[in-house]
Amino acid sequence: MNRYLANTQKSRQLYEKAKRVFPSGVSYFIRHMDPYPFYTAKARGSRLVDVDKNEYIDFWMGHYALILGHSPPEIMREVKRQIEKGTHYGTCHELEITSAEQVAKMVPSAEMVRFTNSGTEASMYATRLARSYTKRDRIAKFEGGWHGGYDPLLLAVKPPFDLSESSGLTDGTLKDTVVLPFNDVNGVEDAIKKEELAAVVVEPVLGAGGCIPARKEFLKALRQVCSENGTLLVFDEIITGFRLAPGGAQQFLGVLPDITVMGKILGGGFPVGAIGGPREIMDLMDPLLYARPNFSFHGGTFCANPVTMTAGLATLKTLENGTIISDLNKRGAKLRQELASIFERKDVDVQVVGTSSLFHTHFTDEEIDNVHAVFRADRDKLAQYHTHLIANGVFFLPTKTGALSAAHTKTDLEELLIETEDYVRNNY
Amino acid sequence: MNRYLANTQKSRQLYEKAKRVFPSGVSYFIRHMDPYPFYTAKARGSRLVDVDKNEYIDFWMGHYALILGHSPPEIMREVKRQIEKGTHYGTCHELEITSAEQVAKMVPSAEMVRFTNSGTEASMYATRLARSYTKRDRIAKFEGGWHGGYDPLLLAVKPPFDLSESSGLTDGTLKDTVVLPFNDVNGVEDAIKKEELAAVVVEPVLGAGGCIPARKEFLKALRQVCSENGTLLVFDEIITGFRLAPGGAQQFLGVLPDITVMGKILGGGFPVGAIGGPREIMDLMDPLLYARPNFSFHGGTFCANPVTMTAGLATLKTLENGTIISDLNKRGAKLRQELASIFERKDVDVQVVGTSSLFHTHFTDEEIDNVHAVFRADRDKLAQYHTHLIANGVFFLPTKTGALSAAHTKTDLEELLIETEDYVRNNY
Repeated sequence: MNRYLANTQKSRQLYEKAKRVFPSGVSYFIRHMDPYPFYTAKARGSRLVDVDKNEYIDFWMGHYALILGHSPPEIMREVKRQIEKGTHYGTCHELEITSAEQVAKMVPSAEMVRFTNSGTEASMYATRLARSYTKRDRIAKFEGGWHGGYDPLLLAVKPPFDLSESSGLTDGTLKDTVVLPFNDVNGVEDAIKKEELAAVVVEPVLGAGGCIPARKEFLKALRQVCSENGTLLVFDEIITGFRLAPGGAQQFLGVLPDITVMGKILGGGFPVGAIGGPREIMDLMDPLLYARPNFSFHGGTFCANPVTMTAGLATLKTLENGTIISDLNKRGAKLRQELASIFERKDVDVQVVGTSSLFHTHFTDEEIDNVHAVFRADRDKLAQYHTHLIANGVFFLPTKTGALSAAHTKTDLEELLIETEDYVRNNY
Repeated sequence: MNRYLANTQKSRQLYEKAKRVFPSGVSYFIRHMDPYPFYTAKARGSRLVDVDKNEYIDFWMGHYALILGHSPPEIMREVKRQIEKGTHYGTCHELEITSAEQVAKMVPSAEMVRFTNSGTEASMYATRLARSYTKRDRIAKFEGGWHGGYDPLLLAVKPPFDLSESSGLTDGTLKDTVVLPFNDVNGVEDAIKKEELAAVVVEPVLGAGGCIPARKEFLKALRQVCSENGTLLVFDEIITGFRLAPGGAQQFLGVLPDITVMGKILGGGFPVGAIGGPREIMDLMDPLLYARPNFSFHGGTFCANPVTMTAGLATLKTLENGTIISDLNKRGAKLRQELASIFERKDVDVQVVGTSSLFHTHFTDEEIDNVHAVFRADRDKLAQYHTHLIANGVFFLPTKTGALSAAHTKTDLEELLIETEDYVRNNY
């Protein structure tokens, strides 16, 4: 910690300024760090450089959006070319079609697509579309599930689970959300049969909830019980999409949702979200086919803007043949194994979890397969570990999941292992 | 129309492709046109060029976001420089502070700021923040008010006003929204006194509702009755912000809201939204000060990304001294007058409405000061007029408001007048 303080004097000054204009001094509270965050001056590939010229190997990677690293030159070249032609037409343009076709080609269940400006927006439109299609009000989400800022999904994210993530949510809004236990087939079947749900919204890998993969059997059971009960299955693939496989978790696991919520990687480093699904459902967003009160609204000033479409399409094409992703998946598996060994060698009770190119470390001897176990683990030790890493140039947002990108070198990963060993040596 | 069909063969083919992947073939239904939209290939300054090489003088200007025109070179130069340094850090950075300071400096009531990815998100967070602060559930919006896609605000936008803009909205969500008559002091006072409202959300100029300025006395009365009843006044300045004056409608009219919702121009051509307000309210978004259940959530992966901040800050600095805006306001007033004269000379019943650099034409002899009058006007004639303009290279999204930008030349405005005269000559 002393090392961090000594090395980040300019960041400290900026934070003082930031507190005057931003609540808690930041643009999003998860970017806050104790005692203050560092301020990035530039980013390239796997590296962040802060205003004090400290360099960090970045495993946060723009909230996991940057699977090719920061500003990959081949994507940025195309972006710059697009900028000459316009950043925001506000009209139809060919690239939006090509981008949607590319998504439809890669994501097995996405016959049709609509773009949004964020994952939050995508979750909102997907939830509403499911309600429109089923003509039912109630929806279900899982304990520990995080789907962005839309009201009905802000329940049961972290303990105490009976407190929602935000004030200002009305009882009228919250009464239609049911909370289900993650990775627990028995715990969900009865509820889904009983509740007449419009949708069950699930992350195939709990992201903010601790980087916990859903068991394949769990998702299969969920798929079946949803189908049997007229409930739409919504996969929130904002994190898993275009990462676990070119077609996301649904391709990786072979379980297809009715509606897919996308974001992050899809934008190629620019703001994005999307929903995908079959024509039968998606067509409810066409007012030429469905007049009010049946039409399900979707839109937004910046939807499908040509810069996001350019960066996203170039990124998807790079990922399409699966080479980069399968390499990252292998490196992820090896990294998780090597991290686990480091803790094991000193008998430190740590569960290294994750799948594909996502990884997390929970300080506990308990198997991690739901969010309760994550919060029973020692969060202070986890934060301490991450703080050690940051002070030594390896950046995780404290207590958050790490993600690999194609820009991470062998040395980058070795550095993470070395600093982890160093942390273990100093503390155990 | 025949001329449009003959000149847009490639667009017609693209639309056929688009219909296979997008509901109604578009990314947002308002971009749809009969029989099909044209597809933009590039945009620069005041001009759009479509895939068939037709050129249009653009008065839609990216949903009114582009007050400096498409891709202004001086802004784009800075954007390209930023892209080299990173498009999306996912961490704190100095530009977010400078941008927030710039907003706070320009917008009178915005002591503190939070950025979002869209106006829809900003309206959502503002509504929730007002509910958090007042600990009340009920909110009010106006007939014809459009605030984006957030559920509680999707009521009473267009006739029939008892039908919401989307299916999939639950009764529980809608029961807490009260609808008020626009520009009608008597019609709002009693309701606000009676309803114990968290917030009254109002556009200082009804945008989608027909480009109708709120009367200054109306907003002043609204301000007073809100203050007297513990209700927050929320200005949706997504359209009016940084356009009516450097500090938006609140500066232009001298009436200050409690919370300001911003977007469009603020992004400099990139996706953006923001909320601004006094520390006392904004601090509810700081979980270090307000733990759950009092904390009001705000966040998002791409919030305050450095590309949007770069383009937005450069745009705001260009607008700050008021020269460009006051010039546009003068040109807007003159244009409205000249358009009105053209219709008057042939005794065509048209009301040319708007303020500042916004303008609209309603085919009616009735004074326009609320959305009912807009929809009593002849919408078919309006669409016919806009279709004539489009076929002759002057682009309005049919039936939508027009907006001037600094990129519009004298010739551009003359062209609009000439084609309007041509339309009147042919039809009256």
